[in-house]
Amino acid sequence: MTSPSGTRCVLVLGGARSGKSAFAEAQVEKSGLEAVYLATGRSFDAEMDARIRQHQARRGSQWRTIEEPLSLAETLAEHSGDDKAVLVDCLTLWVTNLMMAERDVAQESSSLAACLGDCRGLVVLVSNEVGLGIVPDNAMARAFRDHAGRLHQMIAAHCDEVYLLAAGLPLKMKG
Amino acid sequence: MTSPSGTRCVLVLGGARSGKSAFAEAQVEKSGLEAVYLATGRSFDAEMDARIRQHQARRGSQWRTIEEPLSLAETLAEHSGDDKAVLVDCLTLWVTNLMMAERDVAQESSSLAACLGDCRGLVVLVSNEVGLGIVPDNAMARAFRDHAGRLHQMIAAHCDEVYLLAAGLPLKMKG
Amino acid sequence: MTSPSGTRCVLVLGGARSGKSAFAEAQVEKSGLEAVYLATGRSFDAEMDARIRQHQARRGSQWRTIEEPLSLAETLAEHSGDDKAVLVDCLTLWVTNLMMAERDVAQESSSLAACLGDCRGLVVLVSNEVGLGIVPDNAMARAFRDHAGRLHQMIAAHCDEVYLLAAGLPLKMKG
Repeated sequence: MTSPSGTRCVLVLGGARSGKSAFAEAQVEKSGLEAVYLATGRSFDAEMDARIRQHQARRGSQWRTIEEPLSLAETLAEHSGDDKAVLVDCLTLWVTNLMMAERDVAQESSSLAACLGDCRGLVVLVSNEVGLGIVPDNAMARAFRDHAGRLHQMIAAHCDEVYLLAAGLPLKMKG
Repeated sequence: MTSPSGTRCVLVLGGARSGKSAFAEAQVEKSGLEAVYLATGRSFDAEMDARIRQHQARRGSQWRTIEEPLSLAETLAEHSGDDKAVLVDCLTLWVTNLMMAERDVAQESSSLAACLGDCRGLVVLVSNEVGLGIVPDNAMARAFRDHAGRLHQMIAAHCDEVYLLAAGLPLKMKG
Repeated sequence: MTSPSGTRCVLVLGGARSGKSAFAEAQVEKSGLEAVYLATGRSFDAEMDARIRQHQARRGSQWRTIEEPLSLAETLAEHSGDDKAVLVDCLTLWVTNLMMAERDVAQESSSLAACLGDCRGLVVLVSNEVGLGIVPDNAMARAFRDHAGRLHQMIAAHCDEVYLLAAGLPLKMKG
């Protein structure tokens, strides 16, 4: 269940401020391919706004940015190509968006995992590992971390490489 | 502090939906030994009920299931044997049960760790790593994660192999 | 960005009750250097008090103990030396202290990271990984885990070795 020759899929997991995005961007930049940034987040408050601006400043101008909060599989398939490296940042925000839009997260997760098999070039997916704390009190947060955990398992099974980041350092879990 | 020859003890740690149970079941199934499922959980709501049914369906009919919420060391000792593989799922639920029953968790944890030295065949213990989030507000949750952390250290010291699961992938920490 | 010859900096990350302090103390003790314990915490309740006493009992009398809740870089620089091993326990408590004192955490974090380059002998820094659970509801907790994560990245970049502890077992992430 890994990628066809000439294609590489990489999952970058980690906690808050673990250096996930910087590591993922470095993977794209050293590939030498055309860099596409596929953002699942839209700014809806000042905190988010600051974070987006900070990420944009770090990436520089050679990146093309696309925003897609919901139809991730379709957008990824459309922008993937032999000469392209697409960075999806991030899957946990996408899960949040799907839940808020009352979509079927399990179904959408399967579709995204399946779509990776048809991608070309390099695809790097960033996501937050959120399942290593105390069980949350509220049912929505529990559902969210269940969705995220299941999605990570599905995506990891289709990826060539999986990394867990902490303190800016990658632990290779697959590949 | 590892097992006598012919016995193997394995601790499988991980977050929510990290693939712990599936990994642990695979260890038991590939051992070729008689599979015993020692469940520490009892269904007390619909969410739990659904999870238990899902795990049962995955395991199939060749497994024998035993439920024991409190006297884990005694039950494990009773069912362990040269031709058996016992899967204990899971330790964190057992800690919750002990706390609700106002048992001495530190004492019970020591007894369980000590009991592993007398087990035979294969013993696989599954538990949730819950200590990698923000310190919880309420004292009960803090006590719970302290109990769980200390238990994991004790059990890991007596195990031949310890794995940390994320995204369905095992990181070998010991063995 | 690692230490000059003859100096070794080690970062020990882990969750609650993961065995971080015991592992860090073992690093200091096997160095054969003069052991200095640099505590960032002060007891302000019975829970904390019990924890401090437990750590002191484990360390024994050959350790010199210094308490410094805020000016960590200065205190570390002052007590570091070719014949000394300084254990800083812990960075997350220091971040809490800085936030409560309304200091500039980013600035203080940079100063601490920079100061490691001038240290001599052995320096072992202990910190809690707190970013692997659900995003906390309250803004202060989110700010705290962002500060902690950024600090860990900065410190890790300056360390020769970085370990992630779980169940008392170290995963080497760098070195």
